[in-house]
Amino acid sequence: MGSLHNGHMALINTSREENQTLAATIFVNPTQFNDDDDFTRYPRDIKTDLSLLEEAGVDIAFTPTLEEMYPPGITTFVDVGQLGDILEGKYRPGHFKGVATIVTKIISISRPTRVYFGQKDAQQCAVVKKINRDLHLGTEIVIVPTIRDSDGLALSSRNLYLSSDDKKAATTLYRSLCLSRTLWDHGENNTEKIKNKMAELIHTEPLASIDYISIANTETLEEVNSITGPSLVSLAVWIGETRLIDNITLCPIIET
Amino acid sequence: MGSLHNGHMALINTSREENQTLAATIFVNPTQFNDDDDFTRYPRDIKTDLSLLEEAGVDIAFTPTLEEMYPPGITTFVDVGQLGDILEGKYRPGHFKGVATIVTKIISISRPTRVYFGQKDAQQCAVVKKINRDLHLGTEIVIVPTIRDSDGLALSSRNLYLSSDDKKAATTLYRSLCLSRTLWDHGENNTEKIKNKMAELIHTEPLASIDYISIANTETLEEVNSITGPSLVSLAVWIGETRLIDNITLCPIIET
Repeated sequence: MGSLHNGHMALINTSREENQTLAATIFVNPTQFNDDDDFTRYPRDIKTDLSLLEEAGVDIAFTPTLEEMYPPGITTFVDVGQLGDILEGKYRPGHFKGVATIVTKIISISRPTRVYFGQKDAQQCAVVKKINRDLHLGTEIVIVPTIRDSDGLALSSRNLYLSSDDKKAATTLYRSLCLSRTLWDHGENNTEKIKNKMAELIHTEPLASIDYISIANTETLEEVNSITGPSLVSLAVWIGETRLIDNITLCPIIET
Repeated sequence: MGSLHNGHMALINTSREENQTLAATIFVNPTQFNDDDDFTRYPRDIKTDLSLLEEAGVDIAFTPTLEEMYPPGITTFVDVGQLGDILEGKYRPGHFKGVATIVTKIISISRPTRVYFGQKDAQQCAVVKKINRDLHLGTEIVIVPTIRDSDGLALSSRNLYLSSDDKKAATTLYRSLCLSRTLWDHGENNTEKIKNKMAELIHTEPLASIDYISIANTETLEEVNSITGPSLVSLAVWIGETRLIDNITLCPIIET
């Protein structure tokens, strides 16, 4: 969706190592915004974006207009079912229908060998993997690790909304994720207990307000009671007027 | 869906004139049946089908298994909205969601230059055109005219269900469509009047029971009050235990 940061650049750099030709899409997709104001104020800077892509050696920049992606009379959408209704989907109704539809369109148009998505949007990654598999789109979905600033804050175009006080407060997301890892490293397996400790930590930050904290199966994103397989710890937290998400994965070593 | 007849052969013959390589898919798609019994009893004869395809010079026969097209855990579907909910969609809830989903999958897998569908399933043609456009599937949809037997009965795999009495009764569908053309040729423009006359004719056949008679815009399939542009006259009629559909198009000559 443009407003490029080093998280996007990591996608491009990973892609460059694995492919001969690189294409990047910049399109602020209205159907994945559940709030019109959020869509209107979403940061856009196409001129800077295009020079960043050029510098990074991207061969093709695909920057369609709204009318090209959604011509008049368009009504078809792609729905992934349950996976799109939980977590982010619960707080942002219709969001993943918008994501699934635009990604299906862009993959249909470009027919890429591989597509790169950032781990920061973990549920989006799961949704995109699912449509690729379920609709036989025939591409390979590559997930690139989250890029963080020195305080641990996950890079996001929405970070542009944060004041310097907000930015300090926003580190609480990653700190709480690290806490979950520490607790787990020390033998805590009960996800309810881990989530409570994370919430306690976040509640010490007056600017923060929690939408959800989840510990779930990394594929189905269904909540788990104890960490027995690869688990996604994810959360959505408002920092003042800005909603941020972040996640880490806990992978138990299976002894054989 | 196999159980090939001369309607399918017309698709193949049309395709042969316009393409170098021909592929045919045979797959009885469970998700487009709204009735389990209908799915179970749907005629299947893969052996005969494959020899017919070979005789016709088809290069590739794609005959996936249920598990290949719908692996466990599949939940994604394609929905065309309103266009899939009217006419056939009203009487067969979920039917066009099943059609749109399987066609998206097959086009994604095969990436054809052109795809051929029969005019007999007019709403299916409209739905397939819509997903191709809305999801940017990048193929060309070619509609091939309906093939009829000497009595005017549109060829359909379901005709195998008809007894010889049923077959005679089934000619009432095409006769009523021809009546609509005759009335229109004689200056009748009022679609309510035309539909009433068609219903009258069908009611003279004791084995026939009408699901719907429609006169609609050929693209949107929305009902029209008078025939001022290209209009689809379509109907669904039960003949005994068998549900049949048929249609014709009325195209006014626009004087300029």
